Amino acid sequence: MPPPPPPPSQPQTPHDLRLACRNGTHTTTTSLSSPTVQCNLLVLPSRYAPSFTQLCARNPVSCPLLYSTFPGSKTAPPLAVGANLATDLPRYNVYRDGKLVAERAEVEEEWTADHVGFLIGCSYSFEWALSAAGFPPKHTLCVPVKCVPMFRTAVPLAPAGEFTGGCLVVSMRAYRERDVAEVRRITRAFRRQHGEPVAWGWAGARMLGIEEKVRKGLVDFGEWVGIDGEVGEVPVFWGCGVTPQVAVMESGIQGVVISHVPGCMFVTDVPVEEEEGPNPKL
Amino acid sequence: MPPPPPPPSQPQTPHDLRLACRNGTHTTTTSLSSPTVQCNLLVLPSRYAPSFTQLCARNPVSCPLLYSTFPGSKTAPPLAVGANLATDLPRYNVYRDGKLVAERAEVEEEWTADHVGFLIGCSYSFEWALSAAGFPPKHTLCVPVKCVPMFRTAVPLAPAGEFTGGCLVVSMRAYRERDVAEVRRITRAFRRQHGEPVAWGWAGARMLGIEEKVRKGLVDFGEWVGIDGEVGEVPVFWGCGVTPQVAVMESGIQGVVISHVPGCMFVTDVPVEEEEGPNPKL
Repeated sequence: MPPPPPPPSQPQTPHDLRLACRNGTHTTTTSLSSPTVQCNLLVLPSRYAPSFTQLCARNPVSCPLLYSTFPGSKTAPPLAVGANLATDLPRYNVYRDGKLVAERAEVEEEWTADHVGFLIGCSYSFEWALSAAGFPPKHTLCVPVKCVPMFRTAVPLAPAGEFTGGCLVVSMRAYRERDVAEVRRITRAFRRQHGEPVAWGWAGARMLGIEEKVRKGLVDFGEWVGIDGEVGEVPVFWGCGVTPQVAVMESGIQGVVISHVPGCMFVTDVPVEEEEGPNPKL
Repeated sequence: MPPPPPPPSQPQTPHDLRLACRNGTHTTTTSLSSPTVQCNLLVLPSRYAPSFTQLCARNPVSCPLLYSTFPGSKTAPPLAVGANLATDLPRYNVYRDGKLVAERAEVEEEWTADHVGFLIGCSYSFEWALSAAGFPPKHTLCVPVKCVPMFRTAVPLAPAGEFTGGCLVVSMRAYRERDVAEVRRITRAFRRQHGEPVAWGWAGARMLGIEEKVRKGLVDFGEWVGIDGEVGEVPVFWGCGVTPQVAVMESGIQGVVISHVPGCMFVTDVPVEEEEGPNPKL
């Protein structure tokens, strides 16, 4: 009798992947083989939902709102059949009165009947398209894969109600300068997944107020991946769904807030290529 | 026989006002008695229309797109019956290959069959609501009325296609610090007219990178109106529809581009109070 085949390196469907996250056997959503839309999660007391919705509307590049739940509901049926938003992400951050108080594998208890969940587009959704076009992000080529590097910029968000004092957070991928136009073109199509970059090159880093941090590799979130100037690489920056998480923390709102841990996203059933078609599902 | 009554100081309906602008007998749209939605105008060669639409979608606070024409059309029937966008604004700027080449009272000749007109929300639309609530903007109280002061900030726009290198432009109104919360609340409702302020106070001016210009009254557009620190006034800043005009100029796109002159807006028939109701007309 032949030996059984080796276990696959990652679950094969979004549903299987969510179950593996739920069971604790899968711990990252970087570089998935199944290219479906991934989302940032933010869970707020319901009284803040109107202002947060407005914050997203005013800052759609960094905070593209794809879905929000009814208070107390932990599901998102149009995006993911059978999913539980309180268990199906690899890791969660729990904040109380604006301070991080715990990291959790699930948040069934913290997510009360008064909480509203918001799902926000994520640049992990378009990395598949970059790779398919011959521009794989370097962090996806690391063994094991790394989380994309992220930086808080000096660019202020447009405030909304209680949510003041926020700043744009960006993800960074290094590309050769001559490839930037094509990389811009590829991600431009993913309008609700941060779309085209917000800045590029060292002049772009300066404009965002983060040149020194990027030159030194001092990430605010995620993991550093080098920029190889000798082969002509420069940093390219995209809006990042950690932005609303930082905005919520800066606002100092009261009560329990829950988010994903950066790089540990909610994986939907929606194929990325459907998202920007003539009849987008989201 | 009694003498005829004095002529009214300004036309009484939006239609009359547009005709007066067309005939050259009215030259500003600041502080109108009839509170209908006012719009910024930008007219571009049609090949740039998709990227410009995307620029607005990515920067909705400064560039809230309300309407765009079909190529060659100079009308906006849902907003203004019988209006001609090429004649009914008080003044126009004409640019060629990114450079200002003329100021005109009408642009019938410059607006070709290949041009697309874009109408963008304007903060003049909510000044009526501020005045009604007891917070009249100071520039509307000047005799004669002044144009609102405007500043180019250091905050970069999210680029879109050809439109790179733009920055947020803001309008400024001075209010007492203790009134800022109420002023924010009032304009928050006007979501497609720039909505609530983007920043306020001297810390806000610093965040936008314009503290020195504001302290010295060095406006980039419009007219300076003082800030009276002795009565507790601070600057309050709103997104401004001059932003897309600057973005288009910065991009260096080729061909003829037309815009309104700052402060000389397109006046629609749409009552401001309808704009944000349950069935907005725009």
